[in-house]
Amino acid sequence: MSIIQPRTLQGFRDFLPDVMMARESIMERARTVFRSFGFAPIDTPALEYLEILTGKGGEETDRQLYRFEDHGGRKVGLRFDLTVPLARFAAQHIGQLGTPFKRYHLGTVWRGERAQRGRYREFMQCDFDTIGTTSLVADIEIVQVIHDLLLAIGIERFRVHINNRKVLNGLLERFELSDRTGPVLRALDKLPKIGREAVEQELCEAAGLSSEQAERVLTLAEIHGSNESILEQLEPLVAGSQRGEAGLDELRRTVEACAAAGVGTDRLQIDVSIARGLDYYTGTVYETFLTDLPTIGSICSGGRYDDLASLYTKQQLPGVGASLGLDRLLAALDELKLLEKAHTPADLMVAYFDKTRLHDYLRIAAELRRGGLAVECYPEPKKLGQQLKYADRKGFPYVLIAGDREFAENVCQLKHLASGRSETLSLENRAEAVIRFVRERAVS
Amino acid sequence: MSIIQPRTLQGFRDFLPDVMMARESIMERARTVFRSFGFAPIDTPALEYLEILTGKGGEETDRQLYRFEDHGGRKVGLRFDLTVPLARFAAQHIGQLGTPFKRYHLGTVWRGERAQRGRYREFMQCDFDTIGTTSLVADIEIVQVIHDLLLAIGIERFRVHINNRKVLNGLLERFELSDRTGPVLRALDKLPKIGREAVEQELCEAAGLSSEQAERVLTLAEIHGSNESILEQLEPLVAGSQRGEAGLDELRRTVEACAAAGVGTDRLQIDVSIARGLDYYTGTVYETFLTDLPTIGSICSGGRYDDLASLYTKQQLPGVGASLGLDRLLAALDELKLLEKAHTPADLMVAYFDKTRLHDYLRIAAELRRGGLAVECYPEPKKLGQQLKYADRKGFPYVLIAGDREFAENVCQLKHLASGRSETLSLENRAEAVIRFVRERAVS
Repeated sequence: MSIIQPRTLQGFRDFLPDVMMARESIMERARTVFRSFGFAPIDTPALEYLEILTGKGGEETDRQLYRFEDHGGRKVGLRFDLTVPLARFAAQHIGQLGTPFKRYHLGTVWRGERAQRGRYREFMQCDFDTIGTTSLVADIEIVQVIHDLLLAIGIERFRVHINNRKVLNGLLERFELSDRTGPVLRALDKLPKIGREAVEQELCEAAGLSSEQAERVLTLAEIHGSNESILEQLEPLVAGSQRGEAGLDELRRTVEACAAAGVGTDRLQIDVSIARGLDYYTGTVYETFLTDLPTIGSICSGGRYDDLASLYTKQQLPGVGASLGLDRLLAALDELKLLEKAHTPADLMVAYFDKTRLHDYLRIAAELRRGGLAVECYPEPKKLGQQLKYADRKGFPYVLIAGDREFAENVCQLKHLASGRSETLSLENRAEAVIRFVRERAVS
Repeated sequence: MSIIQPRTLQGFRDFLPDVMMARESIMERARTVFRSFGFAPIDTPALEYLEILTGKGGEETDRQLYRFEDHGGRKVGLRFDLTVPLARFAAQHIGQLGTPFKRYHLGTVWRGERAQRGRYREFMQCDFDTIGTTSLVADIEIVQVIHDLLLAIGIERFRVHINNRKVLNGLLERFELSDRTGPVLRALDKLPKIGREAVEQELCEAAGLSSEQAERVLTLAEIHGSNESILEQLEPLVAGSQRGEAGLDELRRTVEACAAAGVGTDRLQIDVSIARGLDYYTGTVYETFLTDLPTIGSICSGGRYDDLASLYTKQQLPGVGASLGLDRLLAALDELKLLEKAHTPADLMVAYFDKTRLHDYLRIAAELRRGGLAVECYPEPKKLGQQLKYADRKGFPYVLIAGDREFAENVCQLKHLASGRSETLSLENRAEAVIRFVRERAVS
């Protein structure tokens, strides 16, 4: 029989235990934080009718769609984000669910991107949104969630950057350039990459601003300083525009409320340069940067929108949300050496030392598990050296060893692999001495 | 603009919060139990090269495959189970991972089944396998895992049924009918459905057994009683066949070891009628039934195989594993009224009672979260009645209410929605009185 070459498609990955354990740990922490704010989980199918997906994310997204005909000849596609499925979901179920509706969704999405280093065609998104309310409280909460989320993951040095679309929109309104918002945002987005002069040129040529208007827009985008200072500098620029003043007020209230809710002022930054490419944002927008690795880009982004599901329902559904980029975050944690890489989830391995004692080993392992430890029994009565080598390679902290002498005294040897030291511990009372020993060491 | 009808494909489902919370809870319990035995998580892509997937699960599976050409013209398919991806994964990575290798894998799979009630085209599998060892300890552990898993999910009344392929194979060997194992197993599989006579006919006609041989095979399959009694009845039937005797010995050792490991004898049953359709099983096979809902079928099944990945590597990889059918289990729990259906993951809602007090509400909610509670802040200062109606509909156990009078005394009202009773609790020391109150009630 000829062998089929075992391989994955380009842009797709296997997750081995070390990376998968880190992924699971972050996902579980994310779920816990989302739930702690009352966000509830949902899931939607990987496959949707093609008409649900096309035309939602622009030409590039349409091109990247994995699409085909199913067994019944229906045109279908794999979801490329979790926002379009949320819009379809909300249109279908919001009557039953009621508003405000707070949901989180951890799910895989697929995009047939051109293959290049660090670009994947299958990746995980972690979205959270509050829909059905225009209240700024929901916007404020998004900052709190990002804040708690990063702390729960073990990241201390980060900053949530916020902006408000109404500020720029208000300014453009005053210039009677409201219809140019798209081109202006796209030009501003390039500021860090192509520089002031080139952006100014694009604002005049592509967006049709006068050079005075372009100057004013650029001045706005370049404002920086403390939150107080930025708010102060913005005030004269938006004065006279109702929308601009409303945006400024929302920024101010968000900053104040976040401080009251315990978000340190060093962790929230008004950043007028944040444009966010997507057209549908209408209020607060968010990006999140790691202080020690700013180049990796925003690891959690989002914003407020006026109408989520207008393509699928006549009911207007305003909302606000953000998305954690799990793969980017993991890459960052790896680079910052904050990723603990284990190859086993177990706290200790029970050596199969005496081949006549299997029942004892199984019983002890079951007792340790009932005490909350994760325990692997080595399955074969091989030489102890071989078993220890396996345990060392897999990264078990401890190996429990017991033979005739230990069983006669109802004790065991607990070998700490890193130091090579052994402790003699009692097995009485369902091995509670072992459970306590391992737990105390695990905490410290 | 015309509205696109919001709908899911037939055989695909949205999971709303109530069901999704139950799913997440079971998946998290499953992960905890798998880890407690040292199984480590992996993940593999949803899309594989088509040649990896075809021809692995028989003609029907091939027909049900979702297959298409990707952007690069490669023939690809969506995984239809987690075993084929494990085989490909093991062939590719086992050198790096070492053996024994214990993995669990919770993942979505897709099959274009004919649409019918209760049949889904997208569902979740929870697989766990130990590969790279022939030791019976790994087989024994599978029973322990199923046992701990069901208890962790809250199911008390269940029974793991085990059989050993070698028993039947040994018998057929004695009849020199080893090449008929497939047709014999397929015929025996139908025993509960079509009855003894029809099976006997099929054994003779399709499998080519003499009527004496068919009688002997049927006698074997119909053995029942306590584990001890079954072992006793099997002994003379397999006597003289080395393979049959080995299978019997493995059944006996499994039963004895499981008892030593704390699996109650009422929860493990030797069941000679279990054939399991799949050809690749070679030793122990498992099915698991709920005592109060036997008709739903096995909710956790699997077995031992000699060679997992022969299609992808020359290295022989024996192993043993099983798979929890999450969707079937959820359907069963629902029918048994064991499914707790909540619409919110939060422990309490903070009412937005006084619109000048937003900062206080946000601060209190943050304090409660730091104390481990899940807390939702209502986002709008609507009438209290409306907020309570929302809380009641979503199923919040408690609503925290505080206005001028309460803030003056640094207390709050904690309203229990089901009873309508309110408690006055102190907000001092980061609201520890509230945290303690809710936690104590949640446990009892």
